Amino acid sequence: MFQPRPIGSVSSPYKQSSEVPKGLGAKHEAAGVLRILPEFEAGLTDIEGFSHLIVLWEFDRSQGFDLLGTPPSDNRPHGVFATRSPRRPNPIGLTVVELLRREGADLHVRGVDMLDATTILDIKPYLSSIPSENLRRGWLAEAEKRKGNS
Amino acid sequence: MFQPRPIGSVSSPYKQSSEVPKGLGAKHEAAGVLRILPEFEAGLTDIEGFSHLIVLWEFDRSQGFDLLGTPPSDNRPHGVFATRSPRRPNPIGLTVVELLRREGADLHVRGVDMLDATTILDIKPYLSSIPSENLRRGWLAEAEKRKGNS
Repeated sequence: MFQPRPIGSVSSPYKQSSEVPKGLGAKHEAAGVLRILPEFEAGLTDIEGFSHLIVLWEFDRSQGFDLLGTPPSDNRPHGVFATRSPRRPNPIGLTVVELLRREGADLHVRGVDMLDATTILDIKPYLSSIPSENLRRGWLAEAEKRKGNS
Repeated sequence: MFQPRPIGSVSSPYKQSSEVPKGLGAKHEAAGVLRILPEFEAGLTDIEGFSHLIVLWEFDRSQGFDLLGTPPSDNRPHGVFATRSPRRPNPIGLTVVELLRREGADLHVRGVDMLDATTILDIKPYLSSIPSENLRRGWLAEAEKRKGNS
């Protein structure tokens, strides 16, 4: 298999995991910067045209994985592949951010939920959405309903 | 950095890259199966509740990367991070699929664009969408417009 390499790192207001908004209704509005390494700057050509980007990054402060875990948004355990838990067989995180502006190799974005200095693996343009009326959200929708009823 | 490990592989109708629909207006409606390794099956618990999944996988038949490349949907070059090119610094692909049903460790899905036997790295629930009216799609929208005008 390939050997991952950093393409840059995140400048984020969050220094510790406990500071990142989590659980039901958590909003990710924090501004941050995706600092791409100079040798990859040419790979950003034309990225300014996209309003939203998909960022893949390493859960670099997480060790090991659990196949079942109880997420902050529920009090019941779920399979790791049905959650966004950091404790995954491959510790790859995914965040959709809004691109505010580019300054050279720095992408100023809104919506970071990564810790400061997180290693970035890849950036892809966000091209299309599943209409929300077509989405089913499983245990998360059920947890929201239970919370609303309590 | 972490060392990637397979969590399963894709069963896809596409044996070669040339068979995968590409370019403007390409539709990904192909049915396929995400065959998860038995040791990770417990990680699928409760995944049935989600209509759509994000699949991360390895571009395992791609070697090396280009910072600039001309995608099938345009005749102009763009930065690799503004495209879905397989020739990326970290060869990680991302596909959103519709989950049709689960049979044990096999997820039957619609919307595969991976080659047969592609290595799966991760599966995450698709939780929310950016409303399409809020999306700007850069060079891709321009390429579509030029095509419509020609």
